[in-house]
Amino acid sequence: MPPASRTEAPAPIVERLALIGAGLIGSAIARAARATGAARAIVIADASAEVRARVETLGFADHVAADVADAARDADLVVLCMPVARTAEVLAAIAPALRPTAVVTDVGSVKASVARAAGQFLALAPRFVPAHPVAGTEHSGPDAGRADLFAGRWCLLTPVAGTAPEAIDLVGRFWERLGSRTATMSPEHHDTVLAVTSHLPHLIAYTIVATASDLEQVTASEIITYSAGGFRDFTRVAASDPAMWRDILIANREAVLAVLARLQADIAEMADAMARGDGAVLEERFARARAVRRGVLDAGQA
Amino acid sequence: MPPASRTEAPAPIVERLALIGAGLIGSAIARAARATGAARAIVIADASAEVRARVETLGFADHVAADVADAARDADLVVLCMPVARTAEVLAAIAPALRPTAVVTDVGSVKASVARAAGQFLALAPRFVPAHPVAGTEHSGPDAGRADLFAGRWCLLTPVAGTAPEAIDLVGRFWERLGSRTATMSPEHHDTVLAVTSHLPHLIAYTIVATASDLEQVTASEIITYSAGGFRDFTRVAASDPAMWRDILIANREAVLAVLARLQADIAEMADAMARGDGAVLEERFARARAVRRGVLDAGQA
Repeated sequence: MPPASRTEAPAPIVERLALIGAGLIGSAIARAARATGAARAIVIADASAEVRARVETLGFADHVAADVADAARDADLVVLCMPVARTAEVLAAIAPALRPTAVVTDVGSVKASVARAAGQFLALAPRFVPAHPVAGTEHSGPDAGRADLFAGRWCLLTPVAGTAPEAIDLVGRFWERLGSRTATMSPEHHDTVLAVTSHLPHLIAYTIVATASDLEQVTASEIITYSAGGFRDFTRVAASDPAMWRDILIANREAVLAVLARLQADIAEMADAMARGDGAVLEERFARARAVRRGVLDAGQA
Repeated sequence: MPPASRTEAPAPIVERLALIGAGLIGSAIARAARATGAARAIVIADASAEVRARVETLGFADHVAADVADAARDADLVVLCMPVARTAEVLAAIAPALRPTAVVTDVGSVKASVARAAGQFLALAPRFVPAHPVAGTEHSGPDAGRADLFAGRWCLLTPVAGTAPEAIDLVGRFWERLGSRTATMSPEHHDTVLAVTSHLPHLIAYTIVATASDLEQVTASEIITYSAGGFRDFTRVAASDPAMWRDILIANREAVLAVLARLQADIAEMADAMARGDGAVLEERFARARAVRRGVLDAGQA
């Protein structure tokens, strides 16, 4: 056999990749896996006939299935890309069809509830690696997932005590091939970190946009027309899928409510300072917040 | 005299334009006025020697002055681009130097307090047109103001009862030449609209970023590293100049506090729904917020 040439494509991470759900994340994984040669064959399942037809047209999968067990059969790696609330139901459906060596992972934004759901499937649990690619846009559906969505973004792996090291290793190498950086933490710590960096920001953005649209003194048309002064950034965050965010916030409500209580106290403190005309309190807080932005830029996450 | 050819550059709106302040907005006006031929000559004043040196290097003005009265002398249009808190002080300094026909306007994010400050200068008041270009970025300083900053953005004119119609007309035509759309409303209504679309979003973004950086359970490094899930959009808004936003929020505190009280009540309602596990309340609110985003996109303000 001749030595590998320098221009030879890297070997695939898995032979057969199954994706359950062809929304933003599922379609982005499919495109990224194809672009990077991470899998030799890609099968994708979606419950919606309309979405399946669109996937066929877009052509980013080798096979399209209606049934999740059909998609998971013969796969080396199964990635759950549907809403987290359906995790237990999908695991129950695919477990009997899985190869004994198949590794299963997910992309959900909450991890403790997903890890608990997977823990119920004793034969599968050691090969289930809860994971969360911290990437996204406000767009949804199979047209939205770009191949570079994960490039330079973090994918957090949140294994539990019983997770097999080889399974963690495989999922980590898969995400690194797609361009992600990976880190490992417990499901519970993940949920606290994400409550701060993602779940609370979405809750507040949705709420402020809804509050604004309810005011009597200002018309909806005015709010929209003059949104360029800051409001439009909130509307962008608030453009994400409402059902998905309902599920995330309910699943992680304990951590989100704890951080929210702190935020409410801080907002009340700012309101008091404004009522007193105490600009120094505002400026100190604003300067501290601005320094965090510098950190985000330096970390290459802007 | 031959008829004007089709390719002839449009006549300048004013012969001599004076800009007081060479920050983001002042430098963007200078670049836009030069790019569109809105003024035959541009003079810019800034209190900082460092900024003046930078303006000389960047070369977007014909004259650079340290003294505001020197800059305003002989100008047809003076645009105040320094912090709103300095409005009365700058008007007092330039009033004796102004030509009797000179028009003065500003770019401040609050308008009732600016209109009141200008009203104290009786000889000048009819020629002072409070205005607010609703455009900006999180960047500051003379390097930051791009010539296209105002293209397609709204500039709100907020004249009072005594403002001369010719002055309003001149300021409107000036902003339209820079690429803006213009609308007219009272200073008080402006301040309510902007409390919702700009001032409250900035206050909340600053507060949530500061709250996050104060938490014990999550390190600042984790917040920064995993900010791509929504938090980084808040840090972008919170990257704006702290002293400027302190002034805006104190100057418009009455309108901001009124809207903030509504937001606090709505946040408490969302927290109650989460604590009860009532996802329907969240989803209804989220769907309503998402519809506003559609409006922002349709209005071309995204």
